[in-house]
Amino acid sequence: MSPKAAENTTRAADSPGEALAALLAPCAKRVEADLERWLVPAGAPDALADGMRYCMAGGKRLRPAITMLSARAIGGSAEEELVRRAAAAVEMVHVYSLVHDDLPAMDDDALRRGRPTAHVQFGEAMAILIGDALLTRAFGVLAEDASAVSARLAAELARAAGAEGMVAGQAADMDLCTLPAGLEGLRYIHLHKTAAMIRAAARMGALAAGAKDEALQAVGEYAENLGLAFQLFDDLLDATGTARQLGKTPGKDAETGKRTHLAVLGAGEARRLGEKLTAAARDALRPLGPAGETLKELANLLTQRTH
Amino acid sequence: MSPKAAENTTRAADSPGEALAALLAPCAKRVEADLERWLVPAGAPDALADGMRYCMAGGKRLRPAITMLSARAIGGSAEEELVRRAAAAVEMVHVYSLVHDDLPAMDDDALRRGRPTAHVQFGEAMAILIGDALLTRAFGVLAEDASAVSARLAAELARAAGAEGMVAGQAADMDLCTLPAGLEGLRYIHLHKTAAMIRAAARMGALAAGAKDEALQAVGEYAENLGLAFQLFDDLLDATGTARQLGKTPGKDAETGKRTHLAVLGAGEARRLGEKLTAAARDALRPLGPAGETLKELANLLTQRTH
Repeated sequence: MSPKAAENTTRAADSPGEALAALLAPCAKRVEADLERWLVPAGAPDALADGMRYCMAGGKRLRPAITMLSARAIGGSAEEELVRRAAAAVEMVHVYSLVHDDLPAMDDDALRRGRPTAHVQFGEAMAILIGDALLTRAFGVLAEDASAVSARLAAELARAAGAEGMVAGQAADMDLCTLPAGLEGLRYIHLHKTAAMIRAAARMGALAAGAKDEALQAVGEYAENLGLAFQLFDDLLDATGTARQLGKTPGKDAETGKRTHLAVLGAGEARRLGEKLTAAARDALRPLGPAGETLKELANLLTQRTH
Repeated sequence: MSPKAAENTTRAADSPGEALAALLAPCAKRVEADLERWLVPAGAPDALADGMRYCMAGGKRLRPAITMLSARAIGGSAEEELVRRAAAAVEMVHVYSLVHDDLPAMDDDALRRGRPTAHVQFGEAMAILIGDALLTRAFGVLAEDASAVSARLAAELARAAGAEGMVAGQAADMDLCTLPAGLEGLRYIHLHKTAAMIRAAARMGALAAGAKDEALQAVGEYAENLGLAFQLFDDLLDATGTARQLGKTPGKDAETGKRTHLAVLGAGEARRLGEKLTAAARDALRPLGPAGETLKELANLLTQRTH
């Protein structure tokens, strides 16, 4: 199914959840095929390759979809090889972060995407190594393009994923860094732990498709707000969802006394903030004109899935 | 001190250990200065930055020296910014691997470079995150150069460090993969766990300095053999050294029943194999002519340090 066809399908879908699934499906299908080709480097031992594949299986593929849809939103093609490399790399980094965050020394989670987490399945040492391998491979998949643009993509990815991005967010979430109190601290965590990588997903798609500064800025701002909204609605879902719906252990945030928007703001105020962020995401797309519609649709559907 | 001056100093030094230190010193000094500038990305929280600096402190800086000396061996300059980025990146990846390998779920080491390991000092969660941050930053430091050559360097680094390289070596060393018995299995481990990154260190230095295929091949083959010899002599040192000499817990290999050349071959045969590998390393440099002399000297000194 072409992205265009998917877009039409979403309009006819019955629920926001189904419409979201329909919007993401063609991108997911494409990234599955690319991961088949790019995930496991030649020469990797079977046990490690199996572990990498196990961890990469499933998931909404939201981040690679944002990469591909951002490439299209700036007038590029999601079929372009460098866009697809960027999408695959972004998903590998996302999954590496899940594998390491689930470790006993971190969030100690036993269930992920409806299956045992990596360390439950393969042991802790292998889980650490699978995460390391996925992170390394993400940069490899980009760098093998051997172009100056691919270096810029790798720099974006490193900034979003590293000590100034996602790693900082996880460290803050684990109370390993000093944070401002209340909403400000919470914003720091979500900005770094979630939004930075979603922002990079969008910017990398646009960059790979040849975006100029204004368009790059637009999709980046869109995705940052979307990422904050997404994390917020994820918190709400954690409080109300079942393990089956979530594919992971529910109610874990409250149980572990984790800082969440729900705890800081209450459900009503949290939902209002989420809608404000979604509106900001949509507004950021203005410079792109009608080409930004699919990204707007994505933002709307992500918000509505908890309603 | 210029590399030239260092070279002269080595000839006058009293012992191979001192001569080695003198040869490495100017390269180490340069990489220290570069790490000061490049290690911690702007915006990293203090706790994480401190952890990264703690783990990066000390060490012989052998790998960045090989990067710099390889750049010089093909007629380039070790002062070139991209050579220096490569050297810094290689050392960050090396240290990330030490931090993760030392974790309780892996080798469970308490002492490294004469100080408490990262997880002893900062806790396990922070140690995992410091390793992740170092690995990510290594690619960031390369990619920020934003050139096609920097992408090629990142591809080399990813290949050497990833599931087809160092991660495979660690998985094999932890008995997480099926391996051939005896010497062949041992060779697989050392080739992947140690030699792959030393080979990449050399190739990246040469690539960053503009090496053509023949020279690239020469320094790569040199470094692979050197890496194998180096790991072998490291095993011998582990069996005979003290904690003070090693900066880490000695005798750990025998205690944990780890596969080593010593156990498989005995000390005499292991030393002979090490010398054979060192000779192969020297021979590989033939195409470079007199420009390869410093790398040869390095190989000789690394071999002699256990005599």
